[in-house]
Amino acid sequence: MMPAGGGEARGESMALLAAIAHQRLTHPEIGAFLDQAESNNGQLNPWQQANVRAMRRSYRRASTVPESLVRATRIACTRCEQAWRIARGNNDWPAVSGLLEEVVRLTIEAATALGESLSLAPYDALLDGYELDTRSAQVTEVFDDLKTFLPGFLDRVLEHQKASVPVPGPFRPEQQHALGEVMMRAFGFDFDRGRLDVSHHPFCGGVPDDTRITTRYDEEDFLGSLMAVLHETGHALYQQGLPSDWRHQPVGSALGMAVHESQSLFVEMQVARSRAFMTFAAPIIREQFSVNGDDRAWSVENLHAQTIRVRRDYIRVGADEITYPLHIILRFELEQALIAGDLAVGDIPDAWDESMIRYLGLSTRDNLKDGCMQDVHWFSGLFGYFPTYSLGALTAAQLFAAASRANPELEQQIEAGEFRPLIEWLRREIHGRGQLQSAEDLLVEVTGEPLDVRFFKAHLERRYLAD
Amino acid sequence: MMPAGGGEARGESMALLAAIAHQRLTHPEIGAFLDQAESNNGQLNPWQQANVRAMRRSYRRASTVPESLVRATRIACTRCEQAWRIARGNNDWPAVSGLLEEVVRLTIEAATALGESLSLAPYDALLDGYELDTRSAQVTEVFDDLKTFLPGFLDRVLEHQKASVPVPGPFRPEQQHALGEVMMRAFGFDFDRGRLDVSHHPFCGGVPDDTRITTRYDEEDFLGSLMAVLHETGHALYQQGLPSDWRHQPVGSALGMAVHESQSLFVEMQVARSRAFMTFAAPIIREQFSVNGDDRAWSVENLHAQTIRVRRDYIRVGADEITYPLHIILRFELEQALIAGDLAVGDIPDAWDESMIRYLGLSTRDNLKDGCMQDVHWFSGLFGYFPTYSLGALTAAQLFAAASRANPELEQQIEAGEFRPLIEWLRREIHGRGQLQSAEDLLVEVTGEPLDVRFFKAHLERRYLAD
Repeated sequence: MMPAGGGEARGESMALLAAIAHQRLTHPEIGAFLDQAESNNGQLNPWQQANVRAMRRSYRRASTVPESLVRATRIACTRCEQAWRIARGNNDWPAVSGLLEEVVRLTIEAATALGESLSLAPYDALLDGYELDTRSAQVTEVFDDLKTFLPGFLDRVLEHQKASVPVPGPFRPEQQHALGEVMMRAFGFDFDRGRLDVSHHPFCGGVPDDTRITTRYDEEDFLGSLMAVLHETGHALYQQGLPSDWRHQPVGSALGMAVHESQSLFVEMQVARSRAFMTFAAPIIREQFSVNGDDRAWSVENLHAQTIRVRRDYIRVGADEITYPLHIILRFELEQALIAGDLAVGDIPDAWDESMIRYLGLSTRDNLKDGCMQDVHWFSGLFGYFPTYSLGALTAAQLFAAASRANPELEQQIEAGEFRPLIEWLRREIHGRGQLQSAEDLLVEVTGEPLDVRFFKAHLERRYLAD
Repeated sequence: MMPAGGGEARGESMALLAAIAHQRLTHPEIGAFLDQAESNNGQLNPWQQANVRAMRRSYRRASTVPESLVRATRIACTRCEQAWRIARGNNDWPAVSGLLEEVVRLTIEAATALGESLSLAPYDALLDGYELDTRSAQVTEVFDDLKTFLPGFLDRVLEHQKASVPVPGPFRPEQQHALGEVMMRAFGFDFDRGRLDVSHHPFCGGVPDDTRITTRYDEEDFLGSLMAVLHETGHALYQQGLPSDWRHQPVGSALGMAVHESQSLFVEMQVARSRAFMTFAAPIIREQFSVNGDDRAWSVENLHAQTIRVRRDYIRVGADEITYPLHIILRFELEQALIAGDLAVGDIPDAWDESMIRYLGLSTRDNLKDGCMQDVHWFSGLFGYFPTYSLGALTAAQLFAAASRANPELEQQIEAGEFRPLIEWLRREIHGRGQLQSAEDLLVEVTGEPLDVRFFKAHLERRYLAD
């Protein structure tokens, strides 16, 4: 929503707030308080212990990066992101590559300092900031498995995929908005503590008692927006369900980005794109748009087929769940090379093109806006973030398998639109625990084992090749 | 836009930011810096001198009020304002009067401390925070003049007022929005550094390079929204026109609230509600709503008559410029009594009713939502703010008289929609000076004399009784 001319002032404000937060977090007193708390660790309850651990981690990370670097990074990122917003539309890589070089330079400087302090390689130090205790070696192992599995699987799915027809529009934004609200309510989104609004890109932000979801409306495709709203609803339910007794404290916050993404993908991919969900949703959708069910385009079967359509495309956002991890693997490999200094910013377009051809058979040459300029992440300083999307997808599949084992009625409940038992399970097993445990311990406790790719693969096989 | 459940969290955030700002402003170092700057005053240029004066004032005010009181006040005000939002709709005074008592108690505590430090009565200490160096005795003198003049004048206007017809709606919000943008552009609002959006109540906020105007759209009355947008445009032009060399410093900020309101009322009351303006605007309005000028309702004469219609009403917001000061005088008198301890919160409804009958001949008994519960100000802790609205109206009339003397073509330019010379005059004479001078010195320099009620009266006589 911000006008272009406001970028500089916004950047200054963000830099000031980041610097104030940094000053407070790294105040010498905090170190002494933490020493004292740790020496009394035996007298603390598990929540308090987890809280102190999380505080120590934040303190260590923050103390390692000098305030001047925090401020310089924030300013460089805001500038680069602002320039990207214009440059992307113009397919104008030179307008932004110099600014991105500065962002990468400052990011490497911070990552190197963090890595030395945490005894990690620079890239792992960044990854650790989004997903605690996760190392690129583990991610590589998981991704190597997917790299082997997905391309062949994709070929089989594309061959097996049945015909379906696009639902005929146009769909008025007000109707789409009303449909989004109905579905959010069905999943238990608390509108007394949140809203649904419009923005350039679907998002979930705010705080637990004021959780804001945004989406955009395409008048020719309501399903895309609806699925985006439900994706964000998964994030929102996590945020609204965090333990209120520990609000404003690290232990009361969400676990890493992979668990956060697992919650959005749990709702979107595991539930909302299932056949069972569409059995429940189709009549409501038809009512919302005042159409009757005789039209084949509006049948459960066709609506469901449209929500799980698979195709090779350039764009990560909106990619189906089969090609999505390939987009992520590409970014994961390139950003590791960038931070290691093995890839120069100027060489990103060529490297991107080469990987896209290898993984998806598509060339992005001369179409950088749909290639290496498509995502805001790097331009706003997010390196080490991308892999968490796919770790989230794997986690969601593993969690849904556990939820199904714990509740044999789950599929029938989804068909009937009875989401309460499922949401209560998520609240109890995930949302309400905050950072009490590590993501890995949580997964072991809830599902009986650490992260395993086989649940995701089984989910894909069942959804895309079973019938 | 905020959901009701978000109030507590918002209040905590606002309190934290207020406390951080307060800590920084009252840091002992600041006092030493100011001592040093003041001892070198002779070497400073006029801008720097004005800056140091403004900083000293802020420092003195902030140092007088302890942080605990700042924080308690912020929390009490947010709570009370949140409760008011619900209670007002329910006409439920008991739901909010206790919270308002707490706000008044804390406000008196702060005002007393400020008054002792500044050698002012408590109410004057509050007034001084919105309008520097203005005392209630001066305001009373001006308001006594208006109290004598306005009731009789109002009777004459109501008798003299010609018939006009409401413009037939409905008016689609998108069309109203487009019209608002066209008019904002005509006045020189810079859309590269600002936006127009929707909210519950018209407002102008943000920072000079990201100036946000909001309005609401009534589908039966586009003129109300258009005039509100132009009112806020006056505020916005001031904000966008502040001296960029002094951004983020007190001397680069707007002068007190009376000058700010003079800018909004200059655009709204002096320009946009003039016959000359409607000569320019009527064809654009008709084009925007796709109607032709043959319909009498859409004629310049009728549209203009509708924008200057006068009537006795309960509500301050939306009151015409003749009855408006009477609403203000009522509030000014009651809030002085509240802060002096001469009026208890519990007695506000009776006192309000009595004053409304005296000044406007209307009783608000049993209709508190349109009486003492209509304005957010007291419920959010703003005492001493109301008089600045009417001081702004007087200042606007005096400034417009000066602008007309300086530019004999002004009326013809407005008829032709050539606002540039007028806006350049405002930029040069008001906006670009920030806090370089006091409001009184500024007025003397620009208009040749201190504030005088006769310009406002002459304006009213000319507009409402001349033809």
